[in-house]
Amino acid sequence: MTRKQLIEQIKLKRSFLCVGLDTDIKKIPSCLLDLEDPIFEFNKRIIEATADLCVAYKPNIAFYESRGAQGWRSLQRTCEIIPKSCLNIADAKRGDIGNTADMYAKTFFSKEVSGLEFDAVTVAPYMGEDSISPFLEYPGKWSVVLALTSNKGSLDFQFLADLSGKRLFEHVIEKVNALGSSEQVMYVVGATRGEYFKDIRRIAPDHFLLVPGIGAQGGSLQEVCAFGMNKECGLLVNATRSIIYASKGSDFAERAREEAQKLQIEMEQELQKIGILI
Amino acid sequence: MTRKQLIEQIKLKRSFLCVGLDTDIKKIPSCLLDLEDPIFEFNKRIIEATADLCVAYKPNIAFYESRGAQGWRSLQRTCEIIPKSCLNIADAKRGDIGNTADMYAKTFFSKEVSGLEFDAVTVAPYMGEDSISPFLEYPGKWSVVLALTSNKGSLDFQFLADLSGKRLFEHVIEKVNALGSSEQVMYVVGATRGEYFKDIRRIAPDHFLLVPGIGAQGGSLQEVCAFGMNKECGLLVNATRSIIYASKGSDFAERAREEAQKLQIEMEQELQKIGILI
Repeated sequence: MTRKQLIEQIKLKRSFLCVGLDTDIKKIPSCLLDLEDPIFEFNKRIIEATADLCVAYKPNIAFYESRGAQGWRSLQRTCEIIPKSCLNIADAKRGDIGNTADMYAKTFFSKEVSGLEFDAVTVAPYMGEDSISPFLEYPGKWSVVLALTSNKGSLDFQFLADLSGKRLFEHVIEKVNALGSSEQVMYVVGATRGEYFKDIRRIAPDHFLLVPGIGAQGGSLQEVCAFGMNKECGLLVNATRSIIYASKGSDFAERAREEAQKLQIEMEQELQKIGILI
Repeated sequence: MTRKQLIEQIKLKRSFLCVGLDTDIKKIPSCLLDLEDPIFEFNKRIIEATADLCVAYKPNIAFYESRGAQGWRSLQRTCEIIPKSCLNIADAKRGDIGNTADMYAKTFFSKEVSGLEFDAVTVAPYMGEDSISPFLEYPGKWSVVLALTSNKGSLDFQFLADLSGKRLFEHVIEKVNALGSSEQVMYVVGATRGEYFKDIRRIAPDHFLLVPGIGAQGGSLQEVCAFGMNKECGLLVNATRSIIYASKGSDFAERAREEAQKLQIEMEQELQKIGILI
């Protein structure tokens, strides 16, 4: 999905919601557990209930990988049913070099190799340029690079500043800006760091930002939009637990839809403010 | 495997070699390709040919994951045949937070969950404390944290220095030192950065360092030992391509053994210098 197509979907659905699929066998409703592939069945119902309200899905790979070959199959089947109108993001946070980075890129971007084909993958920058550039060699695919994350530990290293006051997350963004355009690179910026969106927009005015931390993690959508939105929206705001685990009962899909709809309505209001809706 | 047991194996085998299992279907001898699981068969023969010469194996997870469910099975089967006398390191470079980090830890440490059980896993530190501590909650398991890597891109962020001159890789080591002991934490330090081992030993005198970059990447074993060895060895030096791809023919296992033996002999000389061999 190109940048232009993504913006079209945002206008059409009046939403910039990304639904996280961190599907944990221990948290899904017990009514699914007797089915042959409960993880896939859960995802299928969540996707059917929310696909018109969101523009992206983001399976977190850890939840599939932890179930070995069986989990990998659930992920493949999930990938296949994510509608083409939604960006399909592998939240893998991979970071390795050279031929290994290339292997990870193949894993998530080349269906003929791994059986998976995502539109985007999250990438960790610690190892530098050669851990990021192999992902940028796939035309039409997105690399979503960790910049400023939403967790407590983000304070440990991401704010480390050099003599000029430039912080690690700013170094990361400037470096990666030089490697790929805003047609292929996004940055992860946590919603719990609202005040820093201004600093980030100074160096990445056009890029889409993937924003976790809304909902269960306590970030404010209004604050994120106030500081982080650009004239084409430029945000994908993720919610996971507040949507997919809204109910533990057999009404989980309906309740997920209700929670997604609440966010979609708030997002529509934000989109109206920047005047891109017809 | 405990620290004490690892040191015992180093003395017994007169080696601190780690063999990387970056097993690429495109690089293994064609004579294996008709077998049911060529990746596993290759690993099996490499392991049989080298197990008395090394103290660790390190499958790089990208090479398995890129083959989907099939690759995951090859990895499980490989895991099962790595002898108990060798540390079994998942080179996964995972870095995520909270329940996701815990899922990754379960993936690599809990056989009943994923079908895999490694002794150690490599961890990326960008997201800080809560991306590392979940791995430290497994008694008897090792977390091998990226500090200073061997690639060109390591210059991009790892040398970023604060006002006091302390660099990112030093911040990482100091932070992680406070989270776990040298009985459960190792650091990745590239062989191509020989001169920095002195700085690292100042802040991590007792820790084992996992050292990639010998062989194909051009690092010098002598230099690494001169600056990086401590009184109990404290090094696991990895070689991958120079060993496992020493030959493309049917003699690949014998040639791998020869290359491993060359390194073992050099390592024995280094161990004699510190006087821990009988």
